[in-house]
Amino acid sequence: MSEARGPDPTRRSERSRKAILSAAMELMTESGYAKTSIEAIAARAGVGKQTIYRWWPSKAAVIFDALLDLTEGQQGFGLLETGDLKEDLKHALRATAEELADPKFDVSFRALAIEIQYDPKLAGHWREKMLGPALEATKERLRSAQRSGEIDDELDLDVAVEMLYGPLYHRWLLQTAPVTTQHADAVVDLAMRAMSR
Amino acid sequence: MSEARGPDPTRRSERSRKAILSAAMELMTESGYAKTSIEAIAARAGVGKQTIYRWWPSKAAVIFDALLDLTEGQQGFGLLETGDLKEDLKHALRATAEELADPKFDVSFRALAIEIQYDPKLAGHWREKMLGPALEATKERLRSAQRSGEIDDELDLDVAVEMLYGPLYHRWLLQTAPVTTQHADAVVDLAMRAMSR
Repeated sequence: MSEARGPDPTRRSERSRKAILSAAMELMTESGYAKTSIEAIAARAGVGKQTIYRWWPSKAAVIFDALLDLTEGQQGFGLLETGDLKEDLKHALRATAEELADPKFDVSFRALAIEIQYDPKLAGHWREKMLGPALEATKERLRSAQRSGEIDDELDLDVAVEMLYGPLYHRWLLQTAPVTTQHADAVVDLAMRAMSR
Repeated sequence: MSEARGPDPTRRSERSRKAILSAAMELMTESGYAKTSIEAIAARAGVGKQTIYRWWPSKAAVIFDALLDLTEGQQGFGLLETGDLKEDLKHALRATAEELADPKFDVSFRALAIEIQYDPKLAGHWREKMLGPALEATKERLRSAQRSGEIDDELDLDVAVEMLYGPLYHRWLLQTAPVTTQHADAVVDLAMRAMSR
């Protein structure tokens, strides 16, 4: 191997990308969204500001990708298929409740939830890459329960998934009450009554 | 009546208050939240800035009261009691869907939904004066349906009302799909299945 040849640029890019996303999450947790700047992320990640701007149009876009990495890395969007729909839904909704109640997720999710109110492009990105796939994965689990005869096969599944996640996000965004795993269980118990044959 | 005595100060205050709230809503609709300043509201209402600051701590607080006046003036929080729960809930949820889809409400509600993420005092105020009473009014209608035997009297009503409003706010805040009266109807139809005995 010639000494003039540097390290593999793809691997170097991937290393920088991961360093940037980790730095963004760390800074968000430490200082909140307003105080997390592209400059601070670059300094913490040991890259130049221009490297960040080359890959992301805004701070919100960096945070979005950091969250997406974390969500996909932890559990992906697919739901369990144990054959017991109620337990599988409780597993999924408890995970959502835990995320929303976890300060690390909360600060980033909440910042994005605010940003999308001003930024239709980011809203579309969130819908396509995160909310859409999460809702679709739940619909897929419900379709499987329809096939096995566990729930009514005439259900409007778009509304059914909103009845599952809506109550959690309603509490979380409008701050009417804490989001807990007990609440997630109660939502699933009631939704199962609506979905049963 | 002596000439030295001015107009009734209570009536004058009430007139100023109404002028300020109308001006705030007009400016919000015309220019959005960011461009609506206390100065502009004062100028449009024909009062001094200090009059506004004497009664409200912030721009968000003015917008909040303007919305509250509008909501209470239009319908109050109480639900219809026709004896047909499904129709009464559809009436209420259609009204919510229409408000959320109405640009005048949307711009103000959305601005408040953002502000409460930074302002716990405003969040508490919204919960106590607007969200809480609206949810409570719906719970009261559900209690009445429990008494008449129309729905299960063991239901967790806190979760039941979140299953009604959660799907609408989920769409509206996370911008996953448009909020429509058809959607409101579909939510009520599914929720009724969950609540039935």
